[in-house]
Amino acid sequence: MKQVILVNGALKLPRGKLAAQVAHASLGSFLLTSKSAQREWLGDGMPKVVLHCESEADLLQFESRAANSKLPVALVRDAGHTVVEAGTVTCLGIGPADDSAIDELTGELKLVK
Amino acid sequence: MKQVILVNGALKLPRGKLAAQVAHASLGSFLLTSKSAQREWLGDGMPKVVLHCESEADLLQFESRAANSKLPVALVRDAGHTVVEAGTVTCLGIGPADDSAIDELTGELKLVK
Repeated sequence: MKQVILVNGALKLPRGKLAAQVAHASLGSFLLTSKSAQREWLGDGMPKVVLHCESEADLLQFESRAANSKLPVALVRDAGHTVVEAGTVTCLGIGPADDSAIDELTGELKLVK
Repeated sequence: MKQVILVNGALKLPRGKLAAQVAHASLGSFLLTSKSAQREWLGDGMPKVVLHCESEADLLQFESRAANSKLPVALVRDAGHTVVEAGTVTCLGIGPADDSAIDELTGELKLVK
């Protein structure tokens, strides 16, 4: 089991802002996951991987693919009080779910360094 | 209501790694929070703030202060597969809890930029 969080790399968010948005996506997607999958993932040490996407359009595409695959998925739009415009898509959380289901969808993406 | 995540700034973690550790702390502390406080914070849009600490020693001190104040608190030690040594303290999640209780404890800390 694992969870991935896809980041809108076009925004070049500052470190702290990025971390908060990733945490938002992580918790949002977790809360949409079945209790049994939650428990299994928590027991595994809740593995998370943060992946780079080029644009908002990419994130929206992954959102619809994940939804088609019946995976828990949470798109994060920033409230826009500080760094970016209100409604900007910053991150997409997918899972926790089986590694294979996640990899089939996002296996080509690179880690955020 | 808000949640803060304190970061061990001495580690100078890469962006993606930092974001994953912050998400870990955020979810860990959330899961230790009462259902009623969880609901209230979720209803508020789950505000989160990522704050800078100088060292592991600082994080441990905030952990014990938060515990003394009966706040939910989750210390994250990295499994050490990749970037840092196993057992390194990377982050500390506190709350969600009332803004005033959080600010009393961490109001002096600066945002991670």
